[in-house]
Amino acid sequence: MSTEELLKEQIVERLNNLTKPLGSLGYLEEIALKVGIIQGKVVPELFNDKRVYVFTSDHGVTRNGVSAYPKEVTYQMVLNFLNEGAGINVLSRHVGAKVYVVDSGVDADFNIQDERLINAKIGYGTNDFTLGAAMTIQQAERCIEVGRDIARNAISQGADLLAVGDMGIGNTTVASAVAVALGFDIESILDIGTPIDESVLKTKKAVIEKGIERNKPNPNDVLDVLHKVGGFCIGQMAGYILEAVDNKIPVVVDGFPTTAGLLLAWKMNSDVPKYVLAGHKSGVKGHKVLLDAMGLRPILDLNMRLGEGTGAVLSIPIIEAAVKILREMATFDSANVSKGSDVMK
Amino acid sequence: MSTEELLKEQIVERLNNLTKPLGSLGYLEEIALKVGIIQGKVVPELFNDKRVYVFTSDHGVTRNGVSAYPKEVTYQMVLNFLNEGAGINVLSRHVGAKVYVVDSGVDADFNIQDERLINAKIGYGTNDFTLGAAMTIQQAERCIEVGRDIARNAISQGADLLAVGDMGIGNTTVASAVAVALGFDIESILDIGTPIDESVLKTKKAVIEKGIERNKPNPNDVLDVLHKVGGFCIGQMAGYILEAVDNKIPVVVDGFPTTAGLLLAWKMNSDVPKYVLAGHKSGVKGHKVLLDAMGLRPILDLNMRLGEGTGAVLSIPIIEAAVKILREMATFDSANVSKGSDVMK
Repeated sequence: MSTEELLKEQIVERLNNLTKPLGSLGYLEEIALKVGIIQGKVVPELFNDKRVYVFTSDHGVTRNGVSAYPKEVTYQMVLNFLNEGAGINVLSRHVGAKVYVVDSGVDADFNIQDERLINAKIGYGTNDFTLGAAMTIQQAERCIEVGRDIARNAISQGADLLAVGDMGIGNTTVASAVAVALGFDIESILDIGTPIDESVLKTKKAVIEKGIERNKPNPNDVLDVLHKVGGFCIGQMAGYILEAVDNKIPVVVDGFPTTAGLLLAWKMNSDVPKYVLAGHKSGVKGHKVLLDAMGLRPILDLNMRLGEGTGAVLSIPIIEAAVKILREMATFDSANVSKGSDVMK
Repeated sequence: MSTEELLKEQIVERLNNLTKPLGSLGYLEEIALKVGIIQGKVVPELFNDKRVYVFTSDHGVTRNGVSAYPKEVTYQMVLNFLNEGAGINVLSRHVGAKVYVVDSGVDADFNIQDERLINAKIGYGTNDFTLGAAMTIQQAERCIEVGRDIARNAISQGADLLAVGDMGIGNTTVASAVAVALGFDIESILDIGTPIDESVLKTKKAVIEKGIERNKPNPNDVLDVLHKVGGFCIGQMAGYILEAVDNKIPVVVDGFPTTAGLLLAWKMNSDVPKYVLAGHKSGVKGHKVLLDAMGLRPILDLNMRLGEGTGAVLSIPIIEAAVKILREMATFDSANVSKGSDVMK
């Protein structure tokens, strides 16, 4: 029996001896088990330094009119994050997580000194992938490295739970292109990100198909996919997730764009999903398709489609509850409660 | 336009002006709207005194062998609640809610002075409803009154969010009988509560059918149903919910037995669901059937089936998040973020 199998058996035994009918805490028990295995502990530790990194960048494809918003909103929303007024700020304060904003490649300079804003700019937005590669292969490699650096720094500062967020006008289009390039059927994942109508959705589909046709990304080569149809934020999220996994830090992903980053990470390390909790199932149709492919079950299902990490962060109280179940619940013996005769057979 | 319609319009307008794509916080926005309407405020108040009342009682039907546990577990679990070791204690601490245990009719005396234990004993367990009425009509009336008293006291002490929990060996059997008596199809709701096998499930079905046949409860008479096939806890929960509704205090229900209590309250006041948040969809099959009948959408869906109020309490951070969205998020104007040209049309 491997160390992990032994640990799993010990955690399951502990869960089964808590004063509740067998398995009655459902998915909460699976979350507890997962965190215990990631941390390598039968009784997992509470999280003392929870963070969400919101990766932001611009995407050249927005020239084709694929979003309800002008691309300037990417820049404006970064300022909104720093002013603590966005959805992710409200929800992160609520759950006790700190928000960091990563400038992965916004098409503007911030000239702001703020420890919450990480300058990781790979470029001033990607190129329009309907006209050629979104970025150079060197930029793609750099995305992974820089994403890893961000997670490594966070962990060295004490972060013990890393949520992932994404914001950038055009990001669901780029995330869709990445998924399609990796072999997912476009019909199964195409959906609106921001509120657009049918005609814009058709444009979005045509833009993705043109990007794939024009660039012919190799589905077995993650860097080729990233370089040809990816985004700076998506590449950095992949690196960030890979580094968290290498350090055995639980990662919480958000909606469709962050899950595209996760897909890239998964293609580089098939163990990645073991370390990842899917915060929610977003309202974007393709999200569940991607999660299913990686065997990940979302914690929340509230039809949210805001991004920014909001669905990831909102699941944190549930993850913490799962940890506390293992830490704090009484056992049948300690509480002098009778076990059911036919419960444990 | 009624006051409520005007308020609804104002809250929706506020939600639509927050810096997020229209409707992108999904069900969170509906929760925010619901709490605002209950409280009568465009910007709802935070909850300062969150409580869960766990109604506990014994049920005469357990003589027929319908649970995995001996009935002594009801008594033992009350002590576990008071010792803070049960699932509901762990989750309530986690979300900042206080646990009160109501002895609605446990078949034992506690002889404990503890402000967290409310003596509301209607009797020492109900009668076995396969042999006759579960309780007298006077006891049924008393259940409603006492449940109301409990909520009234809580509210007078400052409670501003009232969750409902239930614990008692045999409670899913009794809850099922109440639902069937009110017209629900037994096949659509019959399920295990604690882990029992197929043969015990058959017994459970036969017991419920025998109780209905023997007592012939009038589906249009709530007190008749409660008196003939109900439980002390279920009746008190109905009263508790009715009183919270009369005082415009949001109520959070848990799984199948608490929702049977809610059903009774709904049959007495059709406005009840407007004031109720369904904390979760439990793993018990019939739960969703009951929620659907009342038009209630569960917040969480984690396949939990523990009861005690655990699913109700675990949803509280989500409800609070919804309230904070309305209170704390920036608007497009205040944050200088561009609105999408085709978003608001």
